[in-house]
Amino acid sequence: MSNTMNALVMRDGDVLLESVALPSPGPGEILVKSLACGICGSDLHITRHSDEVLSFYKKIGIISDDIGTDCSVMLGHEYCAEIVSYGEDTERKLPVGTRVTSVPVLTTREGAGIGVMPGTGGAYSEYFIIDEQLALPVPDSVPTLAAALTEPLAVGLHAVNRSNIRLGDVALVAGCGAIGLAVISALHARGIKTIVASDPQPHKRDVAMSMGASQVIDPTESDEVALATQLAGDNRVIIFECIGIHQLIGTFIERAPVKSALVITGIHTADIQVNYAYATVKEMDIHFSYYYEPEEFAECLQAIADDTINWQPMLTGTTGIKGAVSMFNSLLAPNDHIKVMIEPWRLDG
Amino acid sequence: MSNTMNALVMRDGDVLLESVALPSPGPGEILVKSLACGICGSDLHITRHSDEVLSFYKKIGIISDDIGTDCSVMLGHEYCAEIVSYGEDTERKLPVGTRVTSVPVLTTREGAGIGVMPGTGGAYSEYFIIDEQLALPVPDSVPTLAAALTEPLAVGLHAVNRSNIRLGDVALVAGCGAIGLAVISALHARGIKTIVASDPQPHKRDVAMSMGASQVIDPTESDEVALATQLAGDNRVIIFECIGIHQLIGTFIERAPVKSALVITGIHTADIQVNYAYATVKEMDIHFSYYYEPEEFAECLQAIADDTINWQPMLTGTTGIKGAVSMFNSLLAPNDHIKVMIEPWRLDG
Repeated sequence: MSNTMNALVMRDGDVLLESVALPSPGPGEILVKSLACGICGSDLHITRHSDEVLSFYKKIGIISDDIGTDCSVMLGHEYCAEIVSYGEDTERKLPVGTRVTSVPVLTTREGAGIGVMPGTGGAYSEYFIIDEQLALPVPDSVPTLAAALTEPLAVGLHAVNRSNIRLGDVALVAGCGAIGLAVISALHARGIKTIVASDPQPHKRDVAMSMGASQVIDPTESDEVALATQLAGDNRVIIFECIGIHQLIGTFIERAPVKSALVITGIHTADIQVNYAYATVKEMDIHFSYYYEPEEFAECLQAIADDTINWQPMLTGTTGIKGAVSMFNSLLAPNDHIKVMIEPWRLDG
Repeated sequence: MSNTMNALVMRDGDVLLESVALPSPGPGEILVKSLACGICGSDLHITRHSDEVLSFYKKIGIISDDIGTDCSVMLGHEYCAEIVSYGEDTERKLPVGTRVTSVPVLTTREGAGIGVMPGTGGAYSEYFIIDEQLALPVPDSVPTLAAALTEPLAVGLHAVNRSNIRLGDVALVAGCGAIGLAVISALHARGIKTIVASDPQPHKRDVAMSMGASQVIDPTESDEVALATQLAGDNRVIIFECIGIHQLIGTFIERAPVKSALVITGIHTADIQVNYAYATVKEMDIHFSYYYEPEEFAECLQAIADDTINWQPMLTGTTGIKGAVSMFNSLLAPNDHIKVMIEPWRLDG
């Protein structure tokens, strides 16, 4: 094994393919080989707005103030990987070669996030470090690419759990990217009957139907909030914001019906202008949903193993490490993809 | 009885004492004599920002677009009143002369609010109209001024009910005006042990202690959110915003701890600049609380009758109708009052 590896590195708003030092697992940690890692909307957000995100990280104290805007962030947090070697103080219950996935956090490093901040590695690299306590073996029946979907599916499940939605309520899922589809899948599993999926792109609406939406709507053609409100009658409307465009939040608050809830899954690091009088007179609830519990993560991996999630149509592309930069850049522009996976071990593509 | 009456009228940002026509109760309605009516922060807000409020009313469709900014609003919605006469189609279970209070809404007029909008009367007038179905008789043991506190107490109780606060959680009540104190009283009745009351004015902090706060803090001297966070340990912090200064909302979101909730009771008709990234990484809930259920209103009147609410220190002044304009104007400036009552039947003071 070489002492260096290929890695996709974000620096100052650019994504670059670089050769970097192979990481070394510390106490309680595992070195893993990345088999597949999904490109997430938050990776695109970090790249587009790296100054804004790094400055926010500093404000909340998760990175040091002296880290420059030209620091490297090794991206990639939605992964399936293979155990290569263990660090010290590990239990080593899973043999080397076992496929694993995990919540992308290192409790060994004060909860630092994998693939989202400077100083830790990420799964867009050939190898990276995970936390032994959080590693879950991937059942043999689960394809590697499906296992790498566990993370976004957990984000969706958690958003649904945060929403306090009840049977009879109407869900409006605004945005049918990976997170919106994960929300739809979790709502469907929960038994919610009326799930309105809203997206301007027809094929994403088709995928939404295949994953459990009861109806779809093009928000550029009709008012999706009005449709959900009409379908709800006397029941509540729960709006899941899965778009990530902060300018839209105010319009949801303005259009939402009385006693509705807005669950915000997008990451909005920009300042937002809102008028809360609308939220006040309608007595709205706004729930911010960001991460998930390890139990929710495990539940999603199990659901994939049990074949209760129609995950296949979410996958719209894969690339090897050499094609990753151009694929990543193409996702920064308007595109038709839902979830693209990087397979860093593949030099082709 | 004369065909005219004294009334306090808000027009274009000014409050004026005028002689207006005596109103006439329609079907299902009662003409009442106002015995006492509290001056509410929302009355001050409507007066200070009448353009903004009227424009918001038009946007949400509760008043007609052709109403000018020079329209009259007869204020007053926190009242105790006496039955004078019934309109048609009324059951008349309560004798003329009975003291009553009610939720300030006319279901007979499509839910129009009493004392908050053009077109309906208010309780800063000698006489006004209430909805027979909503009228509650005031028990003999309840002083008139206490009965007029039912409404702000219901606002506080409802905010607590909206918050989903649980035993063990820490409440931070930011602002110890009438609504903050009503929240404290409801939290105390609910058995919440740690209630941090925050206000820059020492005598309001004293009243907060007398109504159930467990500790008080001057937010101009120390960080009230940090104190609540420290007291909470692993429990949740629920912040009740009872200040009504919209610029402070962003600072609560920035300072709030992980998994906390912010309950907004203030009415903020201005656009607000917020950065939701703070709310996202901390997975906050924001609950907007505005009105209350008739059951909550009745519960507060009963609590006063049962003498379980220490309402006396909330009352800091009364005035007759002739002194009402100058009292109202003095409340528009910084002042020490908590709750001032207008007694429109009194010509003096």
